[in-house]
Amino acid sequence: MPTLTDIALDAMGSDKAPDPEIKGAIHACRQLPVRVHLVGPEDRLRAALHDATRGERLPIVIVPATEWISMDEKAATAIRKKPGSTMRVGLRLVKEKKAVGFLTAGNTGAAMALAKMVLGPLPGVDRPSLSALLPTATGSRCVLLDVGANVDCKPHNLEQFAVMGEMYARSVLKIPRPRVGLLSIGEEEGKGNDLTRESFALLKQLSFNFIGNVEGRDIYNGRADVVVCDGFVGNVALKTSEGLARLVRDLLRQSLNSTVTAQVGALLSRKAFDDFKKRLDYSEYGGAPLLGIRGVCIVNHGSSNDRAIYNGIRVTAEFALAGVNQQLEREFAGRRPADPPPESSIFAVGALYDRLPA
Amino acid sequence: MPTLTDIALDAMGSDKAPDPEIKGAIHACRQLPVRVHLVGPEDRLRAALHDATRGERLPIVIVPATEWISMDEKAATAIRKKPGSTMRVGLRLVKEKKAVGFLTAGNTGAAMALAKMVLGPLPGVDRPSLSALLPTATGSRCVLLDVGANVDCKPHNLEQFAVMGEMYARSVLKIPRPRVGLLSIGEEEGKGNDLTRESFALLKQLSFNFIGNVEGRDIYNGRADVVVCDGFVGNVALKTSEGLARLVRDLLRQSLNSTVTAQVGALLSRKAFDDFKKRLDYSEYGGAPLLGIRGVCIVNHGSSNDRAIYNGIRVTAEFALAGVNQQLEREFAGRRPADPPPESSIFAVGALYDRLPA
Repeated sequence: MPTLTDIALDAMGSDKAPDPEIKGAIHACRQLPVRVHLVGPEDRLRAALHDATRGERLPIVIVPATEWISMDEKAATAIRKKPGSTMRVGLRLVKEKKAVGFLTAGNTGAAMALAKMVLGPLPGVDRPSLSALLPTATGSRCVLLDVGANVDCKPHNLEQFAVMGEMYARSVLKIPRPRVGLLSIGEEEGKGNDLTRESFALLKQLSFNFIGNVEGRDIYNGRADVVVCDGFVGNVALKTSEGLARLVRDLLRQSLNSTVTAQVGALLSRKAFDDFKKRLDYSEYGGAPLLGIRGVCIVNHGSSNDRAIYNGIRVTAEFALAGVNQQLEREFAGRRPADPPPESSIFAVGALYDRLPA
Repeated sequence: MPTLTDIALDAMGSDKAPDPEIKGAIHACRQLPVRVHLVGPEDRLRAALHDATRGERLPIVIVPATEWISMDEKAATAIRKKPGSTMRVGLRLVKEKKAVGFLTAGNTGAAMALAKMVLGPLPGVDRPSLSALLPTATGSRCVLLDVGANVDCKPHNLEQFAVMGEMYARSVLKIPRPRVGLLSIGEEEGKGNDLTRESFALLKQLSFNFIGNVEGRDIYNGRADVVVCDGFVGNVALKTSEGLARLVRDLLRQSLNSTVTAQVGALLSRKAFDDFKKRLDYSEYGGAPLLGIRGVCIVNHGSSNDRAIYNGIRVTAEFALAGVNQQLEREFAGRRPADPPPESSIFAVGALYDRLPA
């Protein structure tokens, strides 16, 4: 029997929790060499799991937690008021080495704040970063970071994001020499704003494959493997993309339903549409890792279905097994000293994360 | 015979110039009460126009200009080296009141710099702004500004963008009480970065329909009529959208070509796809106005086809006839004093605009 990789899963994270979490965990345990620690309300999970597995024996362990943080709660308040939340219990499993990584489809701000509190940042990392994996025209994936954890960044923050994103692309996505671009509004070195111009000078000196400034469209055309930006800009880019993708889907659906001929056409093209959706679908890509945390924490989209949870579990295991954090730790050990450590008060951390998108 | 509205058109702006410009102008002169002043190389335009009209008499005037600025030229250098460019000649027609507005599908940075030089900003406006008109799920359009003319903005710049965008939506798009949102990364007042938090306080005090922070996805879901942001952020949002739209188009095309059944389906759905494309297509919307300039200047996308030029001419006329600038002038006359005037040297202006996307 192979050794199983232990993954902690927030059972109450997604919009439709715990259903996608339970189904995703079952699917993962059938397909992958993982043991899932399902964190949430014991009785409810046990009953749901029993219904879903119909007695099949699977390596799923229920870890009790009686409260959970919802999407619309403020991170600071929620963390203070809910010390026994599924997120905190799950992250503690990682801290105590009972699991190699934690996956949640819940409140991003709370996950980031709790990961920093429970696991702490890697030595030398000033600001851990949230990244997103996006599809490209060439079939590759693009790592966009930061996508919402850090606003008003300084050039050395972007430099650290670049180092973390590059290593992630190399270790987990298995891209031998990732092309790293700096998100700006023109390709020449001088274009952009104060932050990008100063960051450009720092990135140029790194020993990796820095391809200079890239533009918004390069996130999707396959020109770059890693795109680095301030968290405000990255979050706007990500949510604008979400909004446009939804608009396209709605308009396409309306148009295809407009006449009987079009409906017949759509029916015949169904496999093509499924294929198309699959190639665009975030749920195929697995969640977004927090980079720069002392431990593995992956955040899935709130609207995750069971397929997205399954892929999130897969990515969490891959991330841990690739040893990204160990590599990052070595990388940052030799770098310039970090900013003064942030105040450790939960209020200070919370106040910061309340500015984040839920 | 109705009075014709005089529009100056850069005949050499678009990627495929002058073909789309000539066809668009012909179409506009047949459909709308406009006279088009086609600015460019006289002999070439005359021959092309003769071929395209086959002797039909249309109110199209050729205004000679022997040089033009290409997309990949640096604005500062091009403006200095090409004093007789189509853009400058066209803008002078507006300055001399021979035309009510100028349309170009050329280099955005050069258009902005020259519009400021030739026409000047409206009194009280610190930074004129470039906006984009985007489609939404409800069929309305969303004015996004600034989309690339101004980076590293101060809160009062965003305040002025809001005032200009609101008036544009009211006067040209005929939205009675436009909903104005501030682009941020969370809806609550405290979310965002330093710039948005300070700008929020200013926008709140304006007498119009400020709906607070909006997120990237709200650009496309019809929640806001006007979305205000720093030019770096707006440009990233716009170009990210372009990139994603192209990816979606390519993947959809590939999937629909993958099997014979899918091809038949696509054939049957052709009208639906045309309808879908039309509802997303920028060329239906007409170009992006420079707001805050003493005169009308509209910038179309470089890849404009004749339909996009036709719509650009229509929007230029509508913008001028709606008297947006006169209203803005009255609005800004009563407001706080402007920043100290920028250096008037062409080099200073050019250096700024060279940071812009072409």
